[in-house]
Amino acid sequence: MSAEQGRRADQARRVAHVLRGQVLRGAFPGGALPDERALVAEFGTSRNTVREALGLLRDEGLVERRRGVGTVVAGRTYQHPLGELSGLAEVLQRHGVVVNEVREARSVRPPLAVARRLGLAEGAATVYLERLRRVDGAPLSLDCTYLIPEVGEPLLARGRATLERQDVFDLIERVAGAPLGRAEVSVRAVVADPATCEVLAMPEGGAVLAVERLTRLADGRPADLEFIHLRGDRLTLQATLDRARDVNSVVE
Amino acid sequence: MSAEQGRRADQARRVAHVLRGQVLRGAFPGGALPDERALVAEFGTSRNTVREALGLLRDEGLVERRRGVGTVVAGRTYQHPLGELSGLAEVLQRHGVVVNEVREARSVRPPLAVARRLGLAEGAATVYLERLRRVDGAPLSLDCTYLIPEVGEPLLARGRATLERQDVFDLIERVAGAPLGRAEVSVRAVVADPATCEVLAMPEGGAVLAVERLTRLADGRPADLEFIHLRGDRLTLQATLDRARDVNSVVE
Repeated sequence: MSAEQGRRADQARRVAHVLRGQVLRGAFPGGALPDERALVAEFGTSRNTVREALGLLRDEGLVERRRGVGTVVAGRTYQHPLGELSGLAEVLQRHGVVVNEVREARSVRPPLAVARRLGLAEGAATVYLERLRRVDGAPLSLDCTYLIPEVGEPLLARGRATLERQDVFDLIERVAGAPLGRAEVSVRAVVADPATCEVLAMPEGGAVLAVERLTRLADGRPADLEFIHLRGDRLTLQATLDRARDVNSVVE
Repeated sequence: MSAEQGRRADQARRVAHVLRGQVLRGAFPGGALPDERALVAEFGTSRNTVREALGLLRDEGLVERRRGVGTVVAGRTYQHPLGELSGLAEVLQRHGVVVNEVREARSVRPPLAVARRLGLAEGAATVYLERLRRVDGAPLSLDCTYLIPEVGEPLLARGRATLERQDVFDLIERVAGAPLGRAEVSVRAVVADPATCEVLAMPEGGAVLAVERLTRLADGRPADLEFIHLRGDRLTLQATLDRARDVNSVVE
């Protein structure tokens, strides 16, 4: 990349940062972005830079170019708060209908690493659920879930129809009667493999949030280990963080 | 993709989920993964499935194949807690040396959308910082920061050397004397554009965590709007979430 290309790429990235935030906050009424001339005026850059910035957002699946209209927001995106432990349907219930396509629901002997994280003996059974989760018909995430037998077996007994309509969290608490406590969550950005892209109906080479979540019962016992791939172009995680007063003292 | 390829891809994904977690938790002493035969035994799948799973982790940049050794963990990864508001150097100080390459540090007239989020009048100046952040020499993130003049100007006055060594959070509190309060954070998974990949020294087509963070002073005024691209192969965000008791009542 030449120095000039690098400079323009830097500028395009800065423009894209601002536009991305605006798209996600719904700042463009009707979903149409300002035209290139207006963007050139606002950002004080060349038209080529504005085009490159719009290209970045197109590649992310956030906007698309529509003939005769210009650049428009590509589709619905959803926000999931990271402040409290809640299921997808619980969070999105006001924004869309969550339906789970149940790909697997059975008792399995899990890999040793899974048994250990769930506090089970080697060779103990778990309940394995795999669900493709759709919001208003469009795939949003692929969830692979290992449950301890105590909470998993009552869910299996209810049958697939129940699993199709409800969050596992909700089912654990209502069907298995086991109140949930705390979860340890880790989040990474990963390029989805071709098979996952196909399942999630996303373009090949797209990014997903790879979430691992170990949820414990209120009494502290691990109950539910989930591996979730969330479409990067459709979901944003959100959190509100407070400055820890004691952090300051440890850095010089 | 044929039905059989799909089934094998599903199994490979499940194996990769478990191995990914183990790699990130440092479960393999010395960094060498078990050999294929041991993995076949542990996961109860075919050797082809195990190879496909290892291929997924290689594509994510988490492991690499080393001739005569087998599959090994590719490089250091870092955890960043999402529970409290803290800077990269504050978090990683026990794990590595954070050095910031200052790409930009100047007073700019920001885009209107940035001025609005910072509570500034149209046309007001901000301080713009752009830093490539390295941990132990290897690029980890590219941070684009807009600061209100009150906190940004004292930082500029200190010169680049200060910005190279310290977190902006730390500088705002120490140099500008303005205690921080709360931040609103959003996180997405995005495929990095080629220019960003070049800056971050990551393979083309790799994924980044795209973080937007608006940090307020203790008195509630917005002070610092950051757009951060974090290498997906090197950083994991972590949070501990508590089950909100009132969520249950709203879902049927």
